[in-house]
Amino acid sequence: MNKTFGPYRRLRQRSREIAFVSSASELLSWDLETYMPPKGLDFRAEQLAYLSGQAHRLWTAKTVGAWIAACEQQGFASDSPEAANVREWRRGYDRATKLPAALVEKFERTRALAREAWREARQRSEFGTFRPHLEKLLDLNRQKADCLGFQESPYDALLDGYEPGTRASQLRTLFQELRPAIGAILGAALERSAAVPKDLLQGHYPLAAQQAFNREVAAAIGFDFEAGRVDATTHPFCSTAGPGDCRLTTRYRETDFTYSLYSILHESGHGLYEQGLPAEHFGTPLGSAASLGIHESQSRLWENHIARHPAFWEHWHPIACRHFPELKALAPAQLTAAVNRVTPSFIRTEADQVTYDLHIILRFEIEVEMLEGRLAVADLPAYWNEAFEKMIGLKVTKDAEGCLQDIHWSLGDLGYFPTYTLGNLNAAQLMARAQTECPGLEAGLARGEYNLLLGWLRDKVHRHGLRYPPQELMRLATGEPTSAVHHLLCLRRKFN
Amino acid sequence: MNKTFGPYRRLRQRSREIAFVSSASELLSWDLETYMPPKGLDFRAEQLAYLSGQAHRLWTAKTVGAWIAACEQQGFASDSPEAANVREWRRGYDRATKLPAALVEKFERTRALAREAWREARQRSEFGTFRPHLEKLLDLNRQKADCLGFQESPYDALLDGYEPGTRASQLRTLFQELRPAIGAILGAALERSAAVPKDLLQGHYPLAAQQAFNREVAAAIGFDFEAGRVDATTHPFCSTAGPGDCRLTTRYRETDFTYSLYSILHESGHGLYEQGLPAEHFGTPLGSAASLGIHESQSRLWENHIARHPAFWEHWHPIACRHFPELKALAPAQLTAAVNRVTPSFIRTEADQVTYDLHIILRFEIEVEMLEGRLAVADLPAYWNEAFEKMIGLKVTKDAEGCLQDIHWSLGDLGYFPTYTLGNLNAAQLMARAQTECPGLEAGLARGEYNLLLGWLRDKVHRHGLRYPPQELMRLATGEPTSAVHHLLCLRRKFN
Repeated sequence: MNKTFGPYRRLRQRSREIAFVSSASELLSWDLETYMPPKGLDFRAEQLAYLSGQAHRLWTAKTVGAWIAACEQQGFASDSPEAANVREWRRGYDRATKLPAALVEKFERTRALAREAWREARQRSEFGTFRPHLEKLLDLNRQKADCLGFQESPYDALLDGYEPGTRASQLRTLFQELRPAIGAILGAALERSAAVPKDLLQGHYPLAAQQAFNREVAAAIGFDFEAGRVDATTHPFCSTAGPGDCRLTTRYRETDFTYSLYSILHESGHGLYEQGLPAEHFGTPLGSAASLGIHESQSRLWENHIARHPAFWEHWHPIACRHFPELKALAPAQLTAAVNRVTPSFIRTEADQVTYDLHIILRFEIEVEMLEGRLAVADLPAYWNEAFEKMIGLKVTKDAEGCLQDIHWSLGDLGYFPTYTLGNLNAAQLMARAQTECPGLEAGLARGEYNLLLGWLRDKVHRHGLRYPPQELMRLATGEPTSAVHHLLCLRRKFN
Repeated sequence: MNKTFGPYRRLRQRSREIAFVSSASELLSWDLETYMPPKGLDFRAEQLAYLSGQAHRLWTAKTVGAWIAACEQQGFASDSPEAANVREWRRGYDRATKLPAALVEKFERTRALAREAWREARQRSEFGTFRPHLEKLLDLNRQKADCLGFQESPYDALLDGYEPGTRASQLRTLFQELRPAIGAILGAALERSAAVPKDLLQGHYPLAAQQAFNREVAAAIGFDFEAGRVDATTHPFCSTAGPGDCRLTTRYRETDFTYSLYSILHESGHGLYEQGLPAEHFGTPLGSAASLGIHESQSRLWENHIARHPAFWEHWHPIACRHFPELKALAPAQLTAAVNRVTPSFIRTEADQVTYDLHIILRFEIEVEMLEGRLAVADLPAYWNEAFEKMIGLKVTKDAEGCLQDIHWSLGDLGYFPTYTLGNLNAAQLMARAQTECPGLEAGLARGEYNLLLGWLRDKVHRHGLRYPPQELMRLATGEPTSAVHHLLCLRRKFN
């Protein structure tokens, strides 16, 4: 019994074919955001819909189900890589085939309209425009959850699409610990931050100098520019066009070089994960990221635990000064203080390290309330504004800065937000473990040496792909499932 | 009977699907040449092979043949657009299905190896390395011609893939007129050119200034940058990723701005044709270029008849001076003289307007001789060198500058080269007709006004797509099939 077993080989082959099509879509989407001329849009949108339909058809063919069943019946050793592929193929196949085609199509059509309505609604800060669309998407998400099946909450069925095996009840426990603890840290953090002038880093940082510096930093942490590149887009992202081809994007402010730098560090974290996945398994679960919460842990780890660590600017300050001579007027510690400034904000994507998870907890609560039928969409803005003020202390006056700010719900994505906080928790937990297991790691940071850390991440996380479900991966890597302990420890150490 | 006839609708739908896949390949290929990181190559090559296989499978399905047969049986009015689509679908289907899969695969494998061998052979200027590969490709091309069928020469079957309906015997007649006539012009042209210093335009032209000037010129002749863009590659090309998305590339020499400018003008000519094809027919013959010889006529027309015309620099000299202040030292007439300098060269792609077609005639003769069995591949270098010296007067000392210079044969493309000369002839013929039919055209050129000409080309050529076979299109546009008359008239007027 080995991987040359016919049905297994066919599944690998089919996965490869789907990877050809899906990677083409990835590149077409990347191009849409980077270089496509505006008049290319209509055709590109149709083309992407066609290709995603093709990938879906390739995967939901009856013969695929038969191959999976044959693999299950023959049985691979339960701890073998092959068994992991079969486990995830089954999961993916069931998720893809349990939904009736009519529901999928209705979902796609509703999404397309909702997205446009959301753009308009956000621009005018007018929730009413988006409301009927969100109602439809909520209803379709309930239907989706019913089709997929769940034990405790319909939320679990949706969450499972992003974070295999995690349940809403587990998140609730985590978040119940997290919320008051963050509240307790916030006061002191705000006090410390008040001493850091808001415009400390304001200056003129030419685009080309930012690009050169960002590239130097990304290469230093290990991003392979022979197997990747950086371009400019409105919203930063990381996209993989194939093994050996990972593309990061960022955006620039000439008045603030940290705006592009920290987004490049974040995306490089994603990119390092993608570049560390085993290329020979590309297109199969063994060559794929374990979950969104694991993916986000890699970006947060480099962005927050490395690049917001005092040692970071000790090493990089003199180099940054070569690119931006005006930074000579500042000490490394001032740079560290500036990039760790805590200040409550309306917008999640601009949130600091302390308040960020409060934004997520709010969204999680709202999603569960709506999905389980205790919160009507019509009452969403009032609910949001009240809860937001209670949590973060700011009074929302515009829905554009409140419940309309994120694109996720307009895409019909419910259950996605918690993976950001899981990423924060996983990052702290992985970092703590890496420091324990690699004695020289901390000292290396001040010399700009990251190979110990990257090597550890490659070994404990990247090379496994989706061999283990995310919580098992965390247990294997750190000895325990995701908890809030290390994240809170870090925040307290930094801000209290 | 109309275009909602079931099988016709299905063929349109299938063409659309193939366009989605083929356009994805186009973009992936463009990206491979422009932005792909080096380690992306292996996967990209496999992906492109898979996608081209998919497009082929979609088109050669038995059901496609049945739909075409149904359309033929029902019958569309012979002058209708639908009939044109059906005619070309039949042609394409037959060409695609007449070749046995085994032959196609063998051809692909042989090509892949031949291309690598050619690169090596050219680099070392060592024909022996390439010889066995060319022998195989020649043999496979003979088999291909046999499968496709022909009446006079196997060459016709191959040529038909690039220039529908044209035969080797017609080319021979054209070239027999062309060759001595060019020879007669060449002497005087060389004398005139001797008076123009070779380094007249040598200078320092910064990249950014070249890009800005090229863009201004391309936009002025009508290239729509909302529906296209320009990037840098080793070899310039024009690639279409969808209706409304046409991509040109060029390369730069900082010592010579005309190097990038004239290649952008050439590619813009291709781009204007692509942008002028009817978008609603994209993916069907009605939305496709008529032939390579027509495509090349569009690039040559703008490159040679417009941008090497004295009126061009009368208008553009002052604008060019804003981008390149050192050009103030020159008069417009000097620029015109410099870009029309005639000098024999070994390399086809560097050839001037007079000698260019001699390079093509040589290749055509060799291809026919080889294909019809009168010239052995082993004797190619000696044949080339002797014929080249007789025609162009230079003694070839390295095969890299002789029979190894072009990539075409290594790709297995025989029958392609003549379309370059057809392009030259068609360009002159179309230009002559446009001048007759648009009285203000010539005067407009000196004012940098190109809309009369572009409008005429849109009306006579672009909007028809492949509605008419190329020679019929030429007859409809100019009153006669492709001839050498106008091309020779132009050359004589300019150089004698």
